[in-house]
Amino acid sequence: MKQKVKNVPIPVIKRMPYYLSFVKILQVNGDKYVSSTKIAKYMGIDSTQVTKDLSHTGITGKTRIGYEVDSFIEILTDFLGFNKVSKAFIVGVGSLGSSLLQDKGLAAFGLKIDKAFDVDEYKIGLTINDIDIHNLNDFKLCAHDNSVKIGIITTPSSEAQKIADIMVDSGIKGIWNFTPSRIKVPNDIVVQNTTIYTNLAILYNKLSSSK
Amino acid sequence: MKQKVKNVPIPVIKRMPYYLSFVKILQVNGDKYVSSTKIAKYMGIDSTQVTKDLSHTGITGKTRIGYEVDSFIEILTDFLGFNKVSKAFIVGVGSLGSSLLQDKGLAAFGLKIDKAFDVDEYKIGLTINDIDIHNLNDFKLCAHDNSVKIGIITTPSSEAQKIADIMVDSGIKGIWNFTPSRIKVPNDIVVQNTTIYTNLAILYNKLSSSK
Repeated sequence: MKQKVKNVPIPVIKRMPYYLSFVKILQVNGDKYVSSTKIAKYMGIDSTQVTKDLSHTGITGKTRIGYEVDSFIEILTDFLGFNKVSKAFIVGVGSLGSSLLQDKGLAAFGLKIDKAFDVDEYKIGLTINDIDIHNLNDFKLCAHDNSVKIGIITTPSSEAQKIADIMVDSGIKGIWNFTPSRIKVPNDIVVQNTTIYTNLAILYNKLSSSK
Repeated sequence: MKQKVKNVPIPVIKRMPYYLSFVKILQVNGDKYVSSTKIAKYMGIDSTQVTKDLSHTGITGKTRIGYEVDSFIEILTDFLGFNKVSKAFIVGVGSLGSSLLQDKGLAAFGLKIDKAFDVDEYKIGLTINDIDIHNLNDFKLCAHDNSVKIGIITTPSSEAQKIADIMVDSGIKGIWNFTPSRIKVPNDIVVQNTTIYTNLAILYNKLSSSK
């Protein structure tokens, strides 16, 4: 049964897909049990942190044996929402957008990109990985017909706010923004910003500091 | 002149590319000055935070006028290391790897992917965006010849540690890991983990909590 996921701190949520990924590898290797110590060692954190994180999910372990691998994967997948298919629309079929359309990984995490949208007449009408590319003008109509709640923005930065406005107006509740622009939305809309460029800044900074 | 970048907190570094992106848009619009209040409003944070963040960079503003847009962009670009070309090798030419090879954005942030590597004989010898795909076996030799310091991992998760070991052995100092696997490296090697799937978990969690 799905646990309540309210009030779980973001850093905890961020670690959980790593736990899941690790325990899935153990499952493939034939392991039946995994200890919090083993997960902690893999993550490079303290085992009490692992135990505390997992207490949010309802996963329970046995003393001196650990967590049962199969149920660990089942419960954590459920907790993270990866077993439920969430339909999404994506706007912007450039190199990043195309990559997401072809990404097999997203499906494993429960995200199904249902339709793509662009303004480029040479792209409209094409199909990538069985996903049709539509005219941006049809976004609202399609979103209503499909009751889609997640919108992905992979346009140039300068278009991000305009696209966000269209999404909100079309009933989208969660926006995954891959542009380096901050977008303004009403309070009840959830935004997750993902820009690989901010990570590049961190990498440079760490490299420069480590000299 | 490049400022010392030691000891700048990661959350500060993360905000800076957003400041830069915003002020670049103002520059295109013809603005000559920007206030910390305007940046703060765009970011949805307090203006004292903006002033404090920028104090790390050496950018100075004028009372009641603000920061001069052109020099703001110049200093911040320099501070973030985006104006210096850093050469990188990438391993794993799947959908994400291909997307990075085609990404024009990375060049604007100073990253030049010089060579790509894969184990798939059908990919080796091909060229994407003028970047040759080499046999993974040639990684070490190529890294030495080119004195490349940054390695990007876009392989399947299960290969990440093996690739990281090859990179470290080849003189790579900074690893940008796009897989959901944690990698173990010596203390003097810098790792930046970027997985879009962890962001997906956060998005689901926020959506679920906001219901």
